Amino acid sequence: MVEIKVLTDVLKANDAIAEQNRKKFEESNVAVFNLIGSPGAGKTSVLEVVIERLKGEYRIGVIEGDIATSRDAERIAKLGVETLQINTRGACHLDANLIASALSEFPYQDLDLLFIENVGNLICPAGYALGEEAKIVVISVPEGQDKPAKYPVIFRNASLMLLNKIDLLPYCDFDIEAMKNDALAVNPDLEVTATSCTTGEGVEEWVTWLRSKMQQRNSKG
Amino acid sequence: MVEIKVLTDVLKANDAIAEQNRKKFEESNVAVFNLIGSPGAGKTSVLEVVIERLKGEYRIGVIEGDIATSRDAERIAKLGVETLQINTRGACHLDANLIASALSEFPYQDLDLLFIENVGNLICPAGYALGEEAKIVVISVPEGQDKPAKYPVIFRNASLMLLNKIDLLPYCDFDIEAMKNDALAVNPDLEVTATSCTTGEGVEEWVTWLRSKMQQRNSKG
Repeated sequence: MVEIKVLTDVLKANDAIAEQNRKKFEESNVAVFNLIGSPGAGKTSVLEVVIERLKGEYRIGVIEGDIATSRDAERIAKLGVETLQINTRGACHLDANLIASALSEFPYQDLDLLFIENVGNLICPAGYALGEEAKIVVISVPEGQDKPAKYPVIFRNASLMLLNKIDLLPYCDFDIEAMKNDALAVNPDLEVTATSCTTGEGVEEWVTWLRSKMQQRNSKG
Repeated sequence: MVEIKVLTDVLKANDAIAEQNRKKFEESNVAVFNLIGSPGAGKTSVLEVVIERLKGEYRIGVIEGDIATSRDAERIAKLGVETLQINTRGACHLDANLIASALSEFPYQDLDLLFIENVGNLICPAGYALGEEAKIVVISVPEGQDKPAKYPVIFRNASLMLLNKIDLLPYCDFDIEAMKNDALAVNPDLEVTATSCTTGEGVEEWVTWLRSKMQQRNSKG
């Protein structure tokens, strides 16, 4: 029981800092999306395809979270957008304080759209708010369709599920409709888009989802 | 710095309990393997294929770690071997204390071979010793070949890498030799076996690896 108490305190302290980050983002009118998924789900790839298509429309930046390397940040920087690498030195998730520190070195005020690619992990990143507008869970077809039942927290907290690597559907035992239903059973408000960064299938829908979120913001603002 | 200090203390406390577990396993002459991999890498599947082949030879048991469900334990129990589910209630890894508690309810003394399937996560489980003889890292082809560089700790701590889902090699951008070399650069002693639980390719090698570990033990004992 003690352990659960401590965890709650840690998350409360994190939420307070996340709220400060959120205010900064709001003041600068920057939309922030927190991408969460297993190692190799394709988080960097789904960012690449969308940045390629939207960088003429919006001022885009990316904060990359990794435990050791800066490989993903190097891939993103090639697209010519503002990129910052956070190395967590072994920690399995980004937290609000790491993002707060990063913001002091990152010109987020000049952006319309900031993506945060979390550390490859389907568990802990789900519990740590960073100040984002929405969480996006990236799941790849070869991971199997049992993920919503086995890792419910991220499906509950996400606004969008990107079901990626659908080009591998013919070679995997995966029922896409059953998987969607399992995800919706956990979170009836979850939106779902299926993509393949290899064939390009579904990428236009993913772009449309982001564009509609940006337009909703601007019509409110 | 404070945070790293705390982490070290946690790991030290864990190691002390792991050492007690290890003594219990040694006293009962049971070989214990800790399987670690991302969600959907195929940890349960590589256990199923090997248990099917070895259950006539050895007395086998499985401890399953999951954050929420008991789906994997149900799959394993169907094979007729002793199975125990640990639900971590949100924690992203098994620790030595969870295993110590499990042992009081689990007839490990009657086993020759105990598999522990860790929570689906490539990061934290790598740092928590459980009292096992060896860690086995399960990586699936669609996760991509950059895993040894991005998640070095588990490759450093593992004795065997099971490269799983090799039936998907024709459809993925994956250079198996380059990936092996990257893994060996992190850990020159790492043994490597490539498997597909769908086609059965490589399963015999994985069985042979386990059998040789069991024979080494018996020749020592």
